[in-house]
Amino acid sequence: MLLFSLSRHGAIPLLPGTLAGVIDLAVDWMTDLKEGVCLSAFWYSHEQCCWTSNETTFEDRDKCPLWQKWSELLVNQSEGASAYILNYLMYILWALLFAFLAVSLVRVFAPYACGSGIPEIKTILSGFIIRGYLGKWTLLIKTVTLVLVVSSGLSLGKEGPLVHVACCCGNFFSSLFSKYSKNEGKRREVLSAAAAAGVSVAFGAPIGGVLFSLEEVSYYFPLKTLWRSFFAALVAAFTLRSINPFGNSRLVLFYVEYHTPWYMAELFPFILLGVFGGLWGTLFIRCNIAWCRRRKTTRLGKYPVLEVIAVTAITAIIAYPNPYTRQSTSELISELFNDCGALESSQLCDYINDPNMTRPVDDIPDRPAGVGVYTAMWQLALALIFKIVVTIFTFGMKIPSGLFIPSMAVGAMAGRMVGIGVEQLAYHHHDWIIFRNWCRPGADCVTPGLYAMVGAAACLGGVTRMTVSLVVIMFELTGGLEYIVPLMAAAVTSKWVADAFGKEGIYEAHIHLNGYPFLDVKDEFTHRTLATDVMRPRRGEPPLSVLTQDSMTVEDVETLIKETDYNGFPVVVSRDSERLIGFAQRRELILAIKNARQRQEGIVSNSIMYFTEEPPELPANSPHPLKLRRILNLSPFTVTDHTPMETVVDIFRKLGLRQCLVTRSGRLLGIITKKDVLRHMAQMANQDPESIMFN
Amino acid sequence: MLLFSLSRHGAIPLLPGTLAGVIDLAVDWMTDLKEGVCLSAFWYSHEQCCWTSNETTFEDRDKCPLWQKWSELLVNQSEGASAYILNYLMYILWALLFAFLAVSLVRVFAPYACGSGIPEIKTILSGFIIRGYLGKWTLLIKTVTLVLVVSSGLSLGKEGPLVHVACCCGNFFSSLFSKYSKNEGKRREVLSAAAAAGVSVAFGAPIGGVLFSLEEVSYYFPLKTLWRSFFAALVAAFTLRSINPFGNSRLVLFYVEYHTPWYMAELFPFILLGVFGGLWGTLFIRCNIAWCRRRKTTRLGKYPVLEVIAVTAITAIIAYPNPYTRQSTSELISELFNDCGALESSQLCDYINDPNMTRPVDDIPDRPAGVGVYTAMWQLALALIFKIVVTIFTFGMKIPSGLFIPSMAVGAMAGRMVGIGVEQLAYHHHDWIIFRNWCRPGADCVTPGLYAMVGAAACLGGVTRMTVSLVVIMFELTGGLEYIVPLMAAAVTSKWVADAFGKEGIYEAHIHLNGYPFLDVKDEFTHRTLATDVMRPRRGEPPLSVLTQDSMTVEDVETLIKETDYNGFPVVVSRDSERLIGFAQRRELILAIKNARQRQEGIVSNSIMYFTEEPPELPANSPHPLKLRRILNLSPFTVTDHTPMETVVDIFRKLGLRQCLVTRSGRLLGIITKKDVLRHMAQMANQDPESIMFN
Repeated sequence: MLLFSLSRHGAIPLLPGTLAGVIDLAVDWMTDLKEGVCLSAFWYSHEQCCWTSNETTFEDRDKCPLWQKWSELLVNQSEGASAYILNYLMYILWALLFAFLAVSLVRVFAPYACGSGIPEIKTILSGFIIRGYLGKWTLLIKTVTLVLVVSSGLSLGKEGPLVHVACCCGNFFSSLFSKYSKNEGKRREVLSAAAAAGVSVAFGAPIGGVLFSLEEVSYYFPLKTLWRSFFAALVAAFTLRSINPFGNSRLVLFYVEYHTPWYMAELFPFILLGVFGGLWGTLFIRCNIAWCRRRKTTRLGKYPVLEVIAVTAITAIIAYPNPYTRQSTSELISELFNDCGALESSQLCDYINDPNMTRPVDDIPDRPAGVGVYTAMWQLALALIFKIVVTIFTFGMKIPSGLFIPSMAVGAMAGRMVGIGVEQLAYHHHDWIIFRNWCRPGADCVTPGLYAMVGAAACLGGVTRMTVSLVVIMFELTGGLEYIVPLMAAAVTSKWVADAFGKEGIYEAHIHLNGYPFLDVKDEFTHRTLATDVMRPRRGEPPLSVLTQDSMTVEDVETLIKETDYNGFPVVVSRDSERLIGFAQRRELILAIKNARQRQEGIVSNSIMYFTEEPPELPANSPHPLKLRRILNLSPFTVTDHTPMETVVDIFRKLGLRQCLVTRSGRLLGIITKKDVLRHMAQMANQDPESIMFN
Repeated sequence: MLLFSLSRHGAIPLLPGTLAGVIDLAVDWMTDLKEGVCLSAFWYSHEQCCWTSNETTFEDRDKCPLWQKWSELLVNQSEGASAYILNYLMYILWALLFAFLAVSLVRVFAPYACGSGIPEIKTILSGFIIRGYLGKWTLLIKTVTLVLVVSSGLSLGKEGPLVHVACCCGNFFSSLFSKYSKNEGKRREVLSAAAAAGVSVAFGAPIGGVLFSLEEVSYYFPLKTLWRSFFAALVAAFTLRSINPFGNSRLVLFYVEYHTPWYMAELFPFILLGVFGGLWGTLFIRCNIAWCRRRKTTRLGKYPVLEVIAVTAITAIIAYPNPYTRQSTSELISELFNDCGALESSQLCDYINDPNMTRPVDDIPDRPAGVGVYTAMWQLALALIFKIVVTIFTFGMKIPSGLFIPSMAVGAMAGRMVGIGVEQLAYHHHDWIIFRNWCRPGADCVTPGLYAMVGAAACLGGVTRMTVSLVVIMFELTGGLEYIVPLMAAAVTSKWVADAFGKEGIYEAHIHLNGYPFLDVKDEFTHRTLATDVMRPRRGEPPLSVLTQDSMTVEDVETLIKETDYNGFPVVVSRDSERLIGFAQRRELILAIKNARQRQEGIVSNSIMYFTEEPPELPANSPHPLKLRRILNLSPFTVTDHTPMETVVDIFRKLGLRQCLVTRSGRLLGIITKKDVLRHMAQMANQDPESIMFN
């Protein structure tokens, strides 16, 4: 039984693990397709093509004869202006083709496949149902379009959408077992575990995945789920390792190895990067939400295909000339994180070597920057501005789009620039007090790659407001366990700064924008209002629509159902005593009456409906009564009218309620729904309660 | 405000961070004191003594002239049988002295300072109050005695007790601020954060600390607490790093660096180690609980000082001759985790070198074992059996004692032995199918240290049943992020195996043994009983003791208080209608009546007590009535009698309730307390409900 249950939990992450591997391979191929094609087999990526042709090393890959750029293939030119322009055009054309395919597929087959999916999954896990959001079509289309949009070079990542894909897998598996498909709570536990598996495979960070699911995605996370998520993440990571898409036998996406420790004085630039991350997070959330609101409310929203095409075209046109934006964003991050070893050929490592110095390969002292580094700084600055602007417009379009990678790229670029700055400052001013203690001439004291890593963590933290999971993901990504204090310091600073401008992370902001009824567990409710201030009916409103236990006719109830749109009705002893006995769901009431009218003899509009065990005493000639005790929920949740709203909010959160009845000494006074709670919280926070739209 | 609030959270971990540093230094000195003394300054440990004397390297430390063994100092002999016996005796004497001091201090000043403290902190965080458990005396005495017992060489660790010490610090700080001291919930949040800080400094594992607090210690862990714990752990780790007690500028206690990856075929021995860990966990818990129960119920419990002295004497006598038990347990673990580099002088690294082979220092191929390794295997096997037995008797004595380090030592010894076995097998049988693919002659294919690490994780997991926090702590301890899959596989196996024999970890088992009213969040309750089956009064029992809202006299209430020992009484409209209006606490009731009788004029035994807004209409000559609405809780928690117990258990857990009233259509039927729930759960699990003792 135990093994069976675990094997089911183990089966779920097999699929996302496999999908992630396939996506990685497909993206590699299609990204390279924008630049050229492999003559030996067109389905080979640049790297595979050169490997298989004649075992040249990685450094010679540009000389690989079987890989042909489009200009070589089409007009047999590899250099010169016309070749450049032809390659440029091909790059743009492929990008447009991929993007057009993606947005069309999403529009036609699975509108829910757009976006990162994390806000919606958060909402679903909090108890709200969005039908079809985790369906099989969404799974299929999101997987395919994800490959297309990432390959098209748009400023987006595949990590968030992979969480959605993993949850679709989880939902699919749980629909196969009645234990899960019939119990909402159990299904949500499976989804939490699936989200963990999603991050686990997205980054190859199993522990980070579990923590992300805990901190960011899941609403209520029982410890049993922690253990299952852990298992799911393990299997997913294991599957991915078996597929080995990064080709380095490591689970780690951006493996780094630095050779110098960090020094206390460096905490200052790290904290500065934290501030930058917080400010970027705030700026991004504000601008992105403003733009998405404009899309929702103006004519812009009517042309999603055009929008995607336009943004793709602009991205491709601006990105191609700059090497840091032309390459894929993961490659960029990887290059920025890297320490400059002796064999590094990157432009970022173009330092002026001191010919008198002979040193082991690993431990290269700080050197003055060469021309390449200065060029790289300019290009990085331009790339940074471009990424900042274009990401704001990209996230939220009608295509799958994740935020992790673009945020990390922004931070890594800023961090690398700061790092090179500090390095050069330390090299040229060894004698300054702040450098004197730790940075002697000829020592390797500043690692710019570490700054890039810290910057990436700060920016990701500013946008998502993760803390623990962020740090764990970062050190699982890079293997840089030694740098836990810098990472934590940057994460803490970035969260402080960003929180000072607004408590909402990007996912909460999108939940709010879309008006999902989501009761954030992080908000504190400290006002002194009581349940009686929030419940319906308010003073002056018509009394609550209730059913009586044994005195209403079928027709009365049908009229009530027709005239109101409530989800359910409290059942009381009688209108006079108003003593609560239970709660009946609208859906079940409609179904029960329909069935009774069709199948039960003697049920007419005049029949009395009763919820008690025994039928009421009726006059002799009255029609046959209808017993409905079966659909009566005998344990509805109640609070008294004097209960502080702080307690009520707590109960709604922890028990995941949708409504709660208000009584005073057993008499029913009113009802509080989740929407009432949300409206009241908005009001107390001086927001317009009607801004919560609930579409 | 934000900064102020955070600075308070930051101040709490400063103290545990400092204490942990001081404890580490004191333990180092006192452990060495058992073997000898430093002539230049008696408060120097062996290492400090040799460092300060004349900068000899670590390898020459045995030749350091200023450090004198007791035999050298007292009879001027350093070799020979009599010197050995003298040193042996001094070792035992110091150990006995330390242990005697520790147990006496605990007995006289702070009986709560004994044990690891984690079961009690779990219980406190679940809502139970143990007065004085987190007091200042406990803090002081536990810190001092912890140093003594660890130095005495007993088979225990300082990690668990440090969590208790940190919680005492947290409690002390929260008593300074009324916001925390007056609100139980807030105080518990501070304690959760303090627990995280405790593990953070115990191991130098900040993230592991947060996760341990989440998974193992805290009962209810809101996300706000996650963030605060994270911050607390960061500050604590930072403080500890500034004190730098391990002298290696690393936060990491057992830093390892392995040079070879692991291979799929090795998963088999790793899983075997997981099975061993699970079996050891089960064995340890069963035997330890049986022994502790014997201590509780027989005369043994009356002589705690004698018991400690006896166990210390036996430990010291058996431990001294074997080098692996004579050294401190952390040093042992560190040695077992280490890979055999070229410079390693340990007996465990006594391999036969091939003189023809010249290789870089790092990458030493597998070699045949030398005499030293075989000796070490024997000694390790004896040490393993000794540790297994002695730890069972040590944990639970009336001294501070943690379990992490002894469990890890057991696992590391077993793991290292398995590792050496696999290594030799692979060396001598390269041609076997299982080795052929990955273990060529002259390759460095098996790292015995990694097996020790995996074994340690498995045993710790078997005892505590941690999962995620275990893996994170292990890789924070060792820096071995590459080995996440082996660690996870061992943790999963060990938990499966151990859970198959009994669901309880050691902390839950001790909670159970001590009869604390702890409602485990991990247990699932799936029975179909209803609230009405559990509530009191049962059928046939006298009716519930209630107060009426305006018809009982002061004397009636005083009699009721005298005759019962309930914590509080429901208040109803009248005995006939039994409609519930609120709940009055026994303590507040007694206080209010006492105050009224002393200060309010006209309050006599015959005065009517009323809980309504307006006084009841009374006959003209009746005495002045007593208004008690102020102490009435107007929002007591209620469920209906038809509520499934599954829901009730869930509500008790998530909302941390102590009691809950049961009603049917507004009429009060009974009450369910936490103890009723616990008894019912025990009954449903086919345990004797009276085995839950509630001392």
